Amino acid sequence: MRNSDDDPPIITLSAGPVDAYPAVLRALSRPVTYDFDPSFQQFYESTVRKTAKALRTALPPVILQGEPVLGLEAAAAALIGADDVVLNLASGVYGKGFGSWAARHCRELVEIEVPYDDAIDPQAVSDMLEARPDIRILSVCHLDTPSGTVNPVREIGAVCRAHDVLSIVDAVSSFGGMDVHPEDAGADIFVTSPSKCLGGSTGLCILHVSERAWAKIDANPAAPTGSVLSLKDWRDAWRSDVLFPFTPSVSEVHGLEAAVQNYLDEGPERVWARHALTARACRAGIRAMGLDLWPAREAICADTATTVRVPAGLEDGAIRQEARRRYGVVFSAGRGPLMGKLVRIGHMGPVARPIYATVAVTALGGAIAALGGSADVGAGVEAALAVIDLAE
Amino acid sequence: MRNSDDDPPIITLSAGPVDAYPAVLRALSRPVTYDFDPSFQQFYESTVRKTAKALRTALPPVILQGEPVLGLEAAAAALIGADDVVLNLASGVYGKGFGSWAARHCRELVEIEVPYDDAIDPQAVSDMLEARPDIRILSVCHLDTPSGTVNPVREIGAVCRAHDVLSIVDAVSSFGGMDVHPEDAGADIFVTSPSKCLGGSTGLCILHVSERAWAKIDANPAAPTGSVLSLKDWRDAWRSDVLFPFTPSVSEVHGLEAAVQNYLDEGPERVWARHALTARACRAGIRAMGLDLWPAREAICADTATTVRVPAGLEDGAIRQEARRRYGVVFSAGRGPLMGKLVRIGHMGPVARPIYATVAVTALGGAIAALGGSADVGAGVEAALAVIDLAE
Amino acid sequence: MRNSDDDPPIITLSAGPVDAYPAVLRALSRPVTYDFDPSFQQFYESTVRKTAKALRTALPPVILQGEPVLGLEAAAAALIGADDVVLNLASGVYGKGFGSWAARHCRELVEIEVPYDDAIDPQAVSDMLEARPDIRILSVCHLDTPSGTVNPVREIGAVCRAHDVLSIVDAVSSFGGMDVHPEDAGADIFVTSPSKCLGGSTGLCILHVSERAWAKIDANPAAPTGSVLSLKDWRDAWRSDVLFPFTPSVSEVHGLEAAVQNYLDEGPERVWARHALTARACRAGIRAMGLDLWPAREAICADTATTVRVPAGLEDGAIRQEARRRYGVVFSAGRGPLMGKLVRIGHMGPVARPIYATVAVTALGGAIAALGGSADVGAGVEAALAVIDLAE
Amino acid sequence: MRNSDDDPPIITLSAGPVDAYPAVLRALSRPVTYDFDPSFQQFYESTVRKTAKALRTALPPVILQGEPVLGLEAAAAALIGADDVVLNLASGVYGKGFGSWAARHCRELVEIEVPYDDAIDPQAVSDMLEARPDIRILSVCHLDTPSGTVNPVREIGAVCRAHDVLSIVDAVSSFGGMDVHPEDAGADIFVTSPSKCLGGSTGLCILHVSERAWAKIDANPAAPTGSVLSLKDWRDAWRSDVLFPFTPSVSEVHGLEAAVQNYLDEGPERVWARHALTARACRAGIRAMGLDLWPAREAICADTATTVRVPAGLEDGAIRQEARRRYGVVFSAGRGPLMGKLVRIGHMGPVARPIYATVAVTALGGAIAALGGSADVGAGVEAALAVIDLAE
Repeated sequence: MRNSDDDPPIITLSAGPVDAYPAVLRALSRPVTYDFDPSFQQFYESTVRKTAKALRTALPPVILQGEPVLGLEAAAAALIGADDVVLNLASGVYGKGFGSWAARHCRELVEIEVPYDDAIDPQAVSDMLEARPDIRILSVCHLDTPSGTVNPVREIGAVCRAHDVLSIVDAVSSFGGMDVHPEDAGADIFVTSPSKCLGGSTGLCILHVSERAWAKIDANPAAPTGSVLSLKDWRDAWRSDVLFPFTPSVSEVHGLEAAVQNYLDEGPERVWARHALTARACRAGIRAMGLDLWPAREAICADTATTVRVPAGLEDGAIRQEARRRYGVVFSAGRGPLMGKLVRIGHMGPVARPIYATVAVTALGGAIAALGGSADVGAGVEAALAVIDLAE
Repeated sequence: MRNSDDDPPIITLSAGPVDAYPAVLRALSRPVTYDFDPSFQQFYESTVRKTAKALRTALPPVILQGEPVLGLEAAAAALIGADDVVLNLASGVYGKGFGSWAARHCRELVEIEVPYDDAIDPQAVSDMLEARPDIRILSVCHLDTPSGTVNPVREIGAVCRAHDVLSIVDAVSSFGGMDVHPEDAGADIFVTSPSKCLGGSTGLCILHVSERAWAKIDANPAAPTGSVLSLKDWRDAWRSDVLFPFTPSVSEVHGLEAAVQNYLDEGPERVWARHALTARACRAGIRAMGLDLWPAREAICADTATTVRVPAGLEDGAIRQEARRRYGVVFSAGRGPLMGKLVRIGHMGPVARPIYATVAVTALGGAIAALGGSADVGAGVEAALAVIDLAE
Repeated sequence: MRNSDDDPPIITLSAGPVDAYPAVLRALSRPVTYDFDPSFQQFYESTVRKTAKALRTALPPVILQGEPVLGLEAAAAALIGADDVVLNLASGVYGKGFGSWAARHCRELVEIEVPYDDAIDPQAVSDMLEARPDIRILSVCHLDTPSGTVNPVREIGAVCRAHDVLSIVDAVSSFGGMDVHPEDAGADIFVTSPSKCLGGSTGLCILHVSERAWAKIDANPAAPTGSVLSLKDWRDAWRSDVLFPFTPSVSEVHGLEAAVQNYLDEGPERVWARHALTARACRAGIRAMGLDLWPAREAICADTATTVRVPAGLEDGAIRQEARRRYGVVFSAGRGPLMGKLVRIGHMGPVARPIYATVAVTALGGAIAALGGSADVGAGVEAALAVIDLAE
Repeated sequence: MRNSDDDPPIITLSAGPVDAYPAVLRALSRPVTYDFDPSFQQFYESTVRKTAKALRTALPPVILQGEPVLGLEAAAAALIGADDVVLNLASGVYGKGFGSWAARHCRELVEIEVPYDDAIDPQAVSDMLEARPDIRILSVCHLDTPSGTVNPVREIGAVCRAHDVLSIVDAVSSFGGMDVHPEDAGADIFVTSPSKCLGGSTGLCILHVSERAWAKIDANPAAPTGSVLSLKDWRDAWRSDVLFPFTPSVSEVHGLEAAVQNYLDEGPERVWARHALTARACRAGIRAMGLDLWPAREAICADTATTVRVPAGLEDGAIRQEARRRYGVVFSAGRGPLMGKLVRIGHMGPVARPIYATVAVTALGGAIAALGGSADVGAGVEAALAVIDLAE
């Protein structure tokens, strides 16, 4: 009666990809249309406009036909010129990782790095920009999923604007689940994904590009064209009277439309609230079980993923395996240098519901207890319920 | 009672994307799994193995997470080094276009170009390789979809082997609908797609890479890594015990599996036969209506797309629009320099069925007649039926 | 290269069940909800209200959880009491067949029967009701699908009202494809289906029941209750605050909602127009091929199914088989006494599109010619196109 | 942040309909085929044969085109003649309810009734059959869902055989989740459903009819024909060379096939084991919370639904509403005389997984506590986990 590796998961509480909403799954099964058919071109334009609405901007975003790393790689290639000095903010694996794309294109890469259970201090950014007035571009990861921590992108964005620095914001795992949007965050390029909090599928990414950023890209002779990495090729593709540079992923576009419509229909504020409540209940449960959250303090914990420190004497792979084997509940592993140090519980899209906080607590606690670790599951579930009770 | 641009098409006879098989559409609606879940990793491995079987090779292909131009761009970037001389064969828009990717990486690009209604002569290739023994890499498009013409890749492959030249074959629009496979074609990199003759979705591409090609890629210091363009990153991703370098397009992988299974279940020979019969019936119908095929001769006509010369005095856009407006039947336009000169009728996947040859003849002929052109639709349909009659 | 019996059909042009619209197929894959969940109860009420809107009545219809014969059987059982004299109008197999259900419940069954290629004359009905003032209930099939003929239900309804006779109208194969509604037709019970012209699925039927009919049912002590055949049990089930008497077919209700929404969104008049145009084009093609329509005259031909007399010397089963084997096109056989005399071509829902008239002509003509019969397919297709040309 | 009645449920733990398996939902979206098309007729035969395999019998079952009450009503109408004395066993609302259908057809209805938290004693049945040798037919509900209790059908079946009495067994909520089959249970008519433990859709029912039962039906002049209630009409419909009497629910048949295939692929013993484990864990959790199970003793508790007595001072509707409002978890209400006395937790099909036992405990306990009742949720979850731990 254990789940084997061959059996599908029962409940996926990963940090993404997460299961898509039923409406998205159905949309993926729509007939595939010839991409140059006018009905599809109109559908594409309307989907991009809806996505702009969700992003709370008037500028049509660029949709690239691949997962968000394509967007991040493409953003670096387009925006960063050979003469640029780039400040990369690294508070986790993903933030750090962006530096490697930036470094391919820039003259010099400067970094502010903090421990991966902490967040960037806007004051430190301000100080650095004062000290290095040659910095023209800043990159920051809003929610560094491997750590489950959040950086203050609004404040950092304000600092950038004050210093006339362009910013690239990775909001892949936060947009759609938290109150973050390109213009609030002062982002010049804002990269996000349908496949995390929007509960969409994994084959597209969404890039908001500001007018300032387009001007910089137009002035960058190395900005790719004739390439899947090209923002320029896709800039006007949203217009129903413009031909696609390459074939869009038709089914993924169907899925995106459904995910965005779902989000707008439910109401963004309501969606964020249930992400936040689920995370809050989960954290309360984790702590009440006697386990430790990974982030240094509650204030920087993400609403969309909770990271739990692996208890001394246990092995993270065994915990995840036991949770899957006994309960069919799937958690995410750590990544890179955090691998083995923490377990990640996703609260994204369809599972950003308080009841799944109790499932997470039950399955994680049960797995730890089964492995001989210490976890007061009963106290954990009750603490999670107490948080849910208080929300109206 | 006319179809407007807002109305969905009734029957899509494009040269791709084509509508997917129902089994593929259903597969796209499968629950999305966390990509590192063991059940998905096993599914991925099994899908790659099935794809290898369809490709008739023991080498697991690389699946890249984007449409085939990603594959072509990535193949050029991986295989072609800064010292290489590349021979690009251009018998159409796509073959010619590959040269622009090759030129980014090579020392020198040599081309053999023929008119875009013709095919490459293997003797010319042999002569060139004799004349230019420094050529190390050859690229060729098997079926240049914009022209609807086929190049003799088997013969060209043999020439390459004789000269120890590596070859890149674009079989995007032919594999799965015609008898062409990487090893038959002597291809070192063979790029194809689930979204044409396999009747799959559009967000993935499939690359066979020979051992020789891997050795060359390993020796190429410029071969991308840490990039969506990287073949190397994805080389071992098919193994269920290896982590994905980036997130795969989970739903598209579900679709690929269904498309390949469908193909193997129906029987490749049978699938090719219905593609060929549909094309043959279509060509007979076109000619019997008094219209001209685009290719210079029947022997080089593709089994998966029929190209028809636009009759004098008419405009291709008007013809396609009229076919869509009156009958809801969608054809493909020409591309690049062929735009305006021909109309393309796809016979791929679910519409590679003889009855759709008669639909194509009826709708194309009806549209031309409606615009005042000359097209004997009755004779066309009867000629198509006569071809179908002869097939057992 | 022939389709075998195991292969799925390529194009279904049956007289029902027809393939459902893609939106319906997707709706069928919605998660199944507990039927007493308030969200489903609200969905059910909203679906019934939309169906009422499509029926152009303020009275919520009864949805029975089975195909239309359940509705017809249930209508007879509810409305017809042991003292009733019923006039059944029989111009075809289905009209005739209703008499057998009526006969189970009534004191006396009176019939007007005409040849099955003809229609009922309202004057004959009027004469009969004059002659037999004890007749209290009349039953009529609007479109007798096995014959492809239409009865003048508006005129017959007016005669019924003039004689204070209750009428049962079978509009299973016409509603949603032709301009017929319960109140226009003066119907007291009007039975129809989601699975014909609405392009829905086959597991439900829709009954409009007038206030007069409900009064009669309430007064009928033999009207079933506690039975799947009971109209009374389901009368108020549409209300979200009333419990279902038995479990509704949740997925079929999802499908019904999509089918009705589709119909309302496209616009009923537009839907009828394309059914009518398809049928008109088909009839023109059939005649131009030198074949005979089954109905005695054009004026009584249905917009949703065309019936073609089997040419002398040929066998209907062989014709249908050949059309399926060669072209994958599926037609319907005759039924009952008409079996063997005609072939039926459906124009319902998604295939009620003019291009499918040419497909029908091509496949039927091709099959007949292949069997040695005489059919001028070229002339047929051109005649069908000429009809389409004239429609704007 | 509460779920409103308009919001869809998050997790449905009803006693049916339950959500279908993803494979079933996808199957429901298959193209709808003309029912007389040979490919569908073959599919239907193959589906019936698979269902027979699941039922562990060589006799092809009858599939009726409606939910199980159609099957029960039809079974009574077919089997019970005007001269028959029927013994109905009533240990719950459904068992009792069958008596009302039986009474319509029989000469005399005899009942053994026990309190609805108890089960039938086979000895009492034996005694009654001794005392009333004129009894020819016995009816029993295996799992009376409203009570969550199980009757010993194997033992009762043996008693029937000993007395040459025909038996009708309602296994709607148990087959597919427990080890019960028509021949084990000595059932002459065995009625079940795809929509409970098989995780299928709700629009069909499955009837096994023994040869003895067919002989009795053939001898019963009142057995319906020409009716949706007719077993005889559908007796041979499973054969691909026999026409359907009425239109089958094509999409529901697609769903049935997927549900049965799923069941056979997973392995029946494994499916039963997870139903049993889930129920055992749930019961342990309920008791540890300080709540009372409804059944008089553990030995008669069902594996597929757990019934919980409503604590004094609380109202069942409020509990279910609170569980749905706070957690989105849906439970079933009581039915008939049990309404208000208990809450029902389903463990059927996709939610027959131990983790859902903890969800049930959490949501039920949380709701009761929120309403001021007493429920030790922490102890409940831990007790459930302890049961899961013991299972290997």
